[in-house]
Amino acid sequence: MDNFLLAAIEEAKMGLEEGGIPIGSVLVRGGTIIGRGHNRRVQHSDPMAHAEIECLRNAGRIGNYGETVLYSTLMPCHLCAGAVVQFGIKTVIAGESVTFEGAVDFMRKNGVSVKDLNDTECIEMMKRFIEEHPEVWNEDIGA
Amino acid sequence: MDNFLLAAIEEAKMGLEEGGIPIGSVLVRGGTIIGRGHNRRVQHSDPMAHAEIECLRNAGRIGNYGETVLYSTLMPCHLCAGAVVQFGIKTVIAGESVTFEGAVDFMRKNGVSVKDLNDTECIEMMKRFIEEHPEVWNEDIGA
Repeated sequence: MDNFLLAAIEEAKMGLEEGGIPIGSVLVRGGTIIGRGHNRRVQHSDPMAHAEIECLRNAGRIGNYGETVLYSTLMPCHLCAGAVVQFGIKTVIAGESVTFEGAVDFMRKNGVSVKDLNDTECIEMMKRFIEEHPEVWNEDIGA
Repeated sequence: MDNFLLAAIEEAKMGLEEGGIPIGSVLVRGGTIIGRGHNRRVQHSDPMAHAEIECLRNAGRIGNYGETVLYSTLMPCHLCAGAVVQFGIKTVIAGESVTFEGAVDFMRKNGVSVKDLNDTECIEMMKRFIEEHPEVWNEDIGA
């Protein structure tokens, strides 16, 4: 499996252990992880703490995002896709989009290359969480 | 002047006094401010700390956003507009879009009612900042 997806899955699992939503993300540049994060809506009572936002925050003020690749265990929603488009991240690699289709069309329309790995572990992890905590998941995506 | 815009301008001025970018935002529901924030990219070295994101974070886990109105001294960028679309905020009121056109088309295409107040104080505040700190401003919007 893609090692960067594995790192994103590790982040998702940390979130789950903390009692949160299992979504993880890493930012990669030149073959190196320069930021990582996981969803912390529940842990920090913070509706903006989506995995990708936490990851980009953790990476800090890196300046230009042109050479970065954003991984997420789940297809980014409009909030996170908005960050991708605004900061000019050109490539997004998502673990899956079965449990949530995300803002893939919006990113592609704005010239972002989006790859969907359709990863079984990512799908099962989210399926289980959504079945067990549907209200937390719906709140997370404003549904 | 609209009192909620005034509150957003107060936030922007707080940011400026802290050495940051003068953009402020408030979230209003039922005629009451339920969240407020200002851009803190510089103060917290946090590229995600746009005014609207800080405001939504400050409001906390409010559940449904259907009855909320988001004010910002400046037209929201794609990151902040992405939050608006994802969480179903139906009305956005911006102080101005002269210094930055923002993601107004994206929001309107997604059914958000966007009002531009074309406020002189907001325009002058941003113009002055951009003239004095063009590199900080460009970094903030990924330009």
